[in-house]
Amino acid sequence: MTKYVYSFSQGNADGNKDMRELLGGKGANLAEMARNNLPVPAGFTITTEVCTYFYDHGKTYPESLKADVEAAMKGIEAAMGKKFGDTENLPLLVSCRSGARESMPGMMDTVLNIGLNDKTVQVLAEKSGSERYAWDCYRRFVQMYGDVVLEMKPANKTEIDPFEKILEAKKEACGVELDSDLSADALKELVAEFKAAVKEATGKDFPEEPMEQVWGAIGAVFGSWMNDRAIVYRRTYDIPHSWGTAVNVQAMVFGNMGEDCATGVALTRDGATGVKGITGDYLINAQGEDVVAGIRRPKKIEESLATDMPEVWDQFQEVALNLEKAYRDVQDIEFTIERKKLYMLQTRNAKRTGFAHVRTAVEMCEEGLIDKATAVKRVPANDVTQLLQPIFAGAGLKGMTPIAKGVNAGPGAATGQICFQPDEAEAWWQKDNSAKLILVRRETTPEDLRGMQVAQGILTSFGGAASHAALVSRQMGKACVCGCDGIVIDYAAKTMTVGDQVFNEGDWISVDGFTGNVYAGQVPTSPSEVLQVLRDGTLKAEEAPLYQLYAKLMGYADEFKKLKIRTNADKPEQAATAIALGAEGIGLTRTEHMFFDHIDEFRTMILADNTADREKALETLLPFQQADFEGLFTAMDGKYVTVRLLDPPLHEFLPHDLAGQQELAAKTGMTVEFIQQRVHDLAESNPMLGHRGCRLGIVYPEITKMQATAIIRAAIACAKKGITVKPEIMVPLVTCLNEFANQEAIIRAACDAELAAAGIEIAYMVGTMIEIPRAALNAGDIAQKAEFFSFGTNDLTQTCLGISRDDYAGFINEYLEKEIFPKDPFQVLDQTGPGKLMKIAVTEGRETRANLELGICGEHGGEPSSVKFCHKIGLDYVSCSPLRVPVAKLAAAQAALED
Amino acid sequence: MTKYVYSFSQGNADGNKDMRELLGGKGANLAEMARNNLPVPAGFTITTEVCTYFYDHGKTYPESLKADVEAAMKGIEAAMGKKFGDTENLPLLVSCRSGARESMPGMMDTVLNIGLNDKTVQVLAEKSGSERYAWDCYRRFVQMYGDVVLEMKPANKTEIDPFEKILEAKKEACGVELDSDLSADALKELVAEFKAAVKEATGKDFPEEPMEQVWGAIGAVFGSWMNDRAIVYRRTYDIPHSWGTAVNVQAMVFGNMGEDCATGVALTRDGATGVKGITGDYLINAQGEDVVAGIRRPKKIEESLATDMPEVWDQFQEVALNLEKAYRDVQDIEFTIERKKLYMLQTRNAKRTGFAHVRTAVEMCEEGLIDKATAVKRVPANDVTQLLQPIFAGAGLKGMTPIAKGVNAGPGAATGQICFQPDEAEAWWQKDNSAKLILVRRETTPEDLRGMQVAQGILTSFGGAASHAALVSRQMGKACVCGCDGIVIDYAAKTMTVGDQVFNEGDWISVDGFTGNVYAGQVPTSPSEVLQVLRDGTLKAEEAPLYQLYAKLMGYADEFKKLKIRTNADKPEQAATAIALGAEGIGLTRTEHMFFDHIDEFRTMILADNTADREKALETLLPFQQADFEGLFTAMDGKYVTVRLLDPPLHEFLPHDLAGQQELAAKTGMTVEFIQQRVHDLAESNPMLGHRGCRLGIVYPEITKMQATAIIRAAIACAKKGITVKPEIMVPLVTCLNEFANQEAIIRAACDAELAAAGIEIAYMVGTMIEIPRAALNAGDIAQKAEFFSFGTNDLTQTCLGISRDDYAGFINEYLEKEIFPKDPFQVLDQTGPGKLMKIAVTEGRETRANLELGICGEHGGEPSSVKFCHKIGLDYVSCSPLRVPVAKLAAAQAALED
Repeated sequence: MTKYVYSFSQGNADGNKDMRELLGGKGANLAEMARNNLPVPAGFTITTEVCTYFYDHGKTYPESLKADVEAAMKGIEAAMGKKFGDTENLPLLVSCRSGARESMPGMMDTVLNIGLNDKTVQVLAEKSGSERYAWDCYRRFVQMYGDVVLEMKPANKTEIDPFEKILEAKKEACGVELDSDLSADALKELVAEFKAAVKEATGKDFPEEPMEQVWGAIGAVFGSWMNDRAIVYRRTYDIPHSWGTAVNVQAMVFGNMGEDCATGVALTRDGATGVKGITGDYLINAQGEDVVAGIRRPKKIEESLATDMPEVWDQFQEVALNLEKAYRDVQDIEFTIERKKLYMLQTRNAKRTGFAHVRTAVEMCEEGLIDKATAVKRVPANDVTQLLQPIFAGAGLKGMTPIAKGVNAGPGAATGQICFQPDEAEAWWQKDNSAKLILVRRETTPEDLRGMQVAQGILTSFGGAASHAALVSRQMGKACVCGCDGIVIDYAAKTMTVGDQVFNEGDWISVDGFTGNVYAGQVPTSPSEVLQVLRDGTLKAEEAPLYQLYAKLMGYADEFKKLKIRTNADKPEQAATAIALGAEGIGLTRTEHMFFDHIDEFRTMILADNTADREKALETLLPFQQADFEGLFTAMDGKYVTVRLLDPPLHEFLPHDLAGQQELAAKTGMTVEFIQQRVHDLAESNPMLGHRGCRLGIVYPEITKMQATAIIRAAIACAKKGITVKPEIMVPLVTCLNEFANQEAIIRAACDAELAAAGIEIAYMVGTMIEIPRAALNAGDIAQKAEFFSFGTNDLTQTCLGISRDDYAGFINEYLEKEIFPKDPFQVLDQTGPGKLMKIAVTEGRETRANLELGICGEHGGEPSSVKFCHKIGLDYVSCSPLRVPVAKLAAAQAALED
Repeated sequence: MTKYVYSFSQGNADGNKDMRELLGGKGANLAEMARNNLPVPAGFTITTEVCTYFYDHGKTYPESLKADVEAAMKGIEAAMGKKFGDTENLPLLVSCRSGARESMPGMMDTVLNIGLNDKTVQVLAEKSGSERYAWDCYRRFVQMYGDVVLEMKPANKTEIDPFEKILEAKKEACGVELDSDLSADALKELVAEFKAAVKEATGKDFPEEPMEQVWGAIGAVFGSWMNDRAIVYRRTYDIPHSWGTAVNVQAMVFGNMGEDCATGVALTRDGATGVKGITGDYLINAQGEDVVAGIRRPKKIEESLATDMPEVWDQFQEVALNLEKAYRDVQDIEFTIERKKLYMLQTRNAKRTGFAHVRTAVEMCEEGLIDKATAVKRVPANDVTQLLQPIFAGAGLKGMTPIAKGVNAGPGAATGQICFQPDEAEAWWQKDNSAKLILVRRETTPEDLRGMQVAQGILTSFGGAASHAALVSRQMGKACVCGCDGIVIDYAAKTMTVGDQVFNEGDWISVDGFTGNVYAGQVPTSPSEVLQVLRDGTLKAEEAPLYQLYAKLMGYADEFKKLKIRTNADKPEQAATAIALGAEGIGLTRTEHMFFDHIDEFRTMILADNTADREKALETLLPFQQADFEGLFTAMDGKYVTVRLLDPPLHEFLPHDLAGQQELAAKTGMTVEFIQQRVHDLAESNPMLGHRGCRLGIVYPEITKMQATAIIRAAIACAKKGITVKPEIMVPLVTCLNEFANQEAIIRAACDAELAAAGIEIAYMVGTMIEIPRAALNAGDIAQKAEFFSFGTNDLTQTCLGISRDDYAGFINEYLEKEIFPKDPFQVLDQTGPGKLMKIAVTEGRETRANLELGICGEHGGEPSSVKFCHKIGLDYVSCSPLRVPVAKLAAAQAALED
């Protein structure tokens, strides 16, 4: 029979750390800690398979689950020496928490203090010696159970929680300000009032039976896997909905039984910067959620735990560092101190920023904790872009004085307009995708996720480095300053006050997530340390610690990667940036971008209605093109430069408005009517599938001839200056060998004539884009003449899926929400769509021509999972935009290591 | 060493009739006739391989060719007992003709009378006893050689041939009207003047050396393979340019040595109607080209040869009928009678109209000459459509009197506006594709091909059933009346005069190719005999001889075909036509066509900006849809009906002009601004790849639900009336299993609920279009849930090739001219493009689901070569438009026979 329930207690565990898929991250780690005799409260984990079953079977459980859970509860009782529902001795209380394979902090539901009822609360009061404590637990439990299990929490965020309403009224009636000032009697009244509210809302009495409470909580946690914010979170972080969550039921230990109790969270290294050393937050006399919620300002573990509870601090340090060694990774630990006894509630590999990822990987490698391969594998390839983002530094900061300073929780420099409400931020951004916003909140909660996503940075007045705002913004790679107590936020007035300065919604501020500084207005940014060192030469390597970490990691990556990394660059300065970042060639130069710089001449060419006029116009364009290519060849001295011939349909270059047409008429001496007629003649219903790519060069061979001539003349001019040129001429949108052969003949004739005239030999290659399904399906044929293939996965995705990227807005969100598509295929290569075509083309192309050069120049070339796919199918290189080069490099190394 | 030259003479031949690929049709048949001891003038054939070599090697020949040709010339001399260039005895003269694998009548060049020069002409005069005859031969030879080999024929048709100009001047000077009235002396002067013209134009003397003349002619014939009209012809008839032509050099025999000489062409059965019996044209004292050119009105063989030359007639009948028996097909024979001796110059399977094809196939089968399989294989599948075309008959002819009557050379009924110049006809048609034209000419020549192509019908005043106009129009399946001597054509005045009636360019006339009648004005047409019998019931089978032939042929086809034939039909009357023609089901019903009938309600649905409003609008549409489906189910009682859910993007249904928007606003009570905003919101850059197909049903599930409900309610209503319904519900534009599963769930839920409520069981299938490359590549996946696939090859071609059919006008002609694409992929399925995807989908789909139903519903489903491909890859059915059903049926039978 399938084992659905895995028990653990200090010194014993059914599971272990390798069982993440079945037990979730939390469950596997709890088992591992228990197995290693760490002080873990006893408990059990219901597997993720039950979650899958639950959703496959109309929210019911496997038959055997009931008996298993009951047996496991007995196990907890035995381990903790308490009885569940005990009305004589201190009763066992349990928590019920979610635990997915990948941590999804705050996304799903939790219920604490399960097992309390009108009778057990009395025993708890008696045995704990604190009536107020017991009734506070009960009050919290009823509220949480009511909200979560009985679904009384309003779905609409603008409505107030019914329990909060009663609580506020009670505080007012009692004349107190804080929850903790309510007396035991007031709390008793509150419980009664809460239960009455439950009865009114649900028509049923609040469940007094402890096991009924357990089952209610289990159901609610499984149910929360499919709540809106969990779904959004998973989509953001690419977690499949099919994984499901485990449920962990665990004995409660109490950080809120008095001043010798505490609860907290800690990281073994800083999650924002990666700097070594325990950091974390704790609260005396509190339950765990108080720390994360950011309502009370927590104390910093590294600053005061040694003073508050010296023996616990020593024990905690030892346990924490041992955990880091055992897991060979930064640990994120939840703990509770119950009457000076330390309990570890959870450990997991810590979430961290890209900065912290790079630093911890490099430093742990240097410490000998991990090897270079592990260091390379561990850093999410996309995260290195954080080290390339602009910063506030140098001249830009001159004369700027911070208006406030908070915790530097999420590194990065962000400038934006103040927005106080997450949903308003989202709406603002949807109306204007270029809006730059800073979300300013007292604290953030999981409901704020969408709003945080659209903001450049986050600023909070409460909460520390472990607060929700800090954790989430780090994960999103967003600049975040939190716990900034110098600012006062008034949601109703939509103001943020700092001293006597009042900022309104829409005002510009800047937050520096490296330093925690907040500035009024827009602070100018400087390039990142990495770019200052590598590209600009404005900073010395030895003065740039972040650059040094980056360089080390890239050095590791270079040792492993097999793919070459090229860049897509149309201008010499783009090429230069890419080379500075390690690009090994140009994989795509789009010649049409150059034409926009000489648009009048180009338009004259398009408007020509006979070959002679067209050739004359092309002649004027030739020297411009040649000069452009010379710039690129010079920048790429010794490296391959792939030049794609004209690709877009000609009508894209013509003015479609009357003013533009009149201007063009004046310049060219043509009539406006003639221009309008040509615009009309050239218009297309589906330009993506229209007269473009090599179809232009076939109908107008003179265009191909001019471009080939310009390329080879540029190569000749450069070669004469001693520059090593390696041109690759690329024919776009080919569907069959005939098209390629037609264009190749024109190209070779033009090039060979120029080379012969110049008396120079330059090896050049002629190849093609593979961006149309038919070309991929007939790659063996095309490789008879093509010397290289470059996969244009943007167009290949469009044609293979029959989806225009310009038009998919109407359904792509729905498709992702409903998981019709696992990912946006224009961001992440669809390996079973265009990917299949690529595999066919690679196999058939190489069969015809063993030394066929293979690359990718679609935007997927800079996306890690796509880069890995390219490695797997045997491409020679990937080409991506200049700033994605480091990402591609790291992903390429990871791909080689995954082999 | 490769054998490039194949000799033949009566009783001896290197080749035979099975060597068409190497020797061309003419060469193979000459060899076969010689081998069978038929009276063939001796000669030799230079193979098509030499043509290929010629074009691959800069118009040069294989080294060994020279010696081989010289040897073969000796062979001719021996066989004919004459010497080439003989200055003492009657010299041997030879002809040089093209001969491709498929006959291309009149498309390539021919040179006759090779071997004449200033000396041999004297001997010819002396030995033939006719000085005039000898100089006439020489005059013709110099003119033809000058035009063809020395390229003096003006490329521009409006210019007059330089030789014609001299000839006209000579006739005027001599005061004669006809060429044949010129005296020997005048002809001598003409030759001298012709030669002077040659010298002036080419700078060289006219070649006197006979072998030099032979090589010149060979080069000109090979060269003519690539002339403009030959290229156009091959494109029209799907003959690959790579085949090349053979060249036949053959001893001249003379039909123009006097009144006991003749030349002619004959068919063993009528090429227009297929009626049994020799028909043909001959001219006494003439050379072959005089017959085809249609300049002199020829005599009819069947009417007068028996009188003119009784013995020759007897011999000819015997030879002709033996040839038909030997080839088991209608023979098209060229012959010459030289002093009462019959020479067979050529025999080949006769070109014929679709009518003649059907009749000869059926009658030869009934005569026992061929079997049913051969009869089926022999009729080009497309040709049966000729039997479905409207005719002039019955009520339409009432009160109409023919203005003239000619030879009924090309069956069919054509009405159109008079046009006299082929190039003007072409220009007219290019400006207006819906123009209906009748090309009216004295006679036609190969240069007129393009103009003939765009005309509905052809009317000539000269030439008989074997004239160029007759042959070509038959092959094109166009109505043609020729040799109509009642009409007088004045090109300059652009008039056609019949008695005292004058018709101008642009006037309407009607020509009946069945009867040879010509009518003024537009004669109303009646449906074809076939449709009158099968569909309309307005004609009895026994009164419809054409129907009877058709029915027999279709009967044969039914015995062999394995594919089922379905039809694409959106309306009951279309379905009824298709059933009458033998359709076995509906393969595609486009529901959007129905929506156009209820456009206001449909637009209200589109304009709804919330689900409730949309559902309300859909509710009003449901009964309309249901009624439409009931009509189809009723028409198709017992047969499968595949209904495709809504496919086109919604914006296609909205008015894009202000007037339409205002009208809609008035009808719906919405503001014009709101409608404009929606039109703007829904607009797409590439609608082909936009928000359409199942993407609509996924975003608006209520549309799918309504359509499924309407289909199943219609099925229930019909079933209750005792009609057998077999609905297949088809989801369009699927790219992956998830999309299909999403829609399938909605469809099944809706259908099952309706069926349960009605308490009825109806088996229905849910399947999908395969029209996107990704779907084909993942067909195995999709077949997990889809019960059938229908290949939508229109869209599959668009996406697989990245070509929009709406936008390919800008390059497709260039692509066909340059042979980049062998065929238009939207007319003929591209078997190595979308065809490859189909094969993958068939294999993978059937692997997942062995009984997966497979069909095609793209327009290729009615195109013979595509139908054959569908058979080959194992589809269950093809679906095509109603009138293509017989074509598909015949092609399906042919495919089965080709297995």
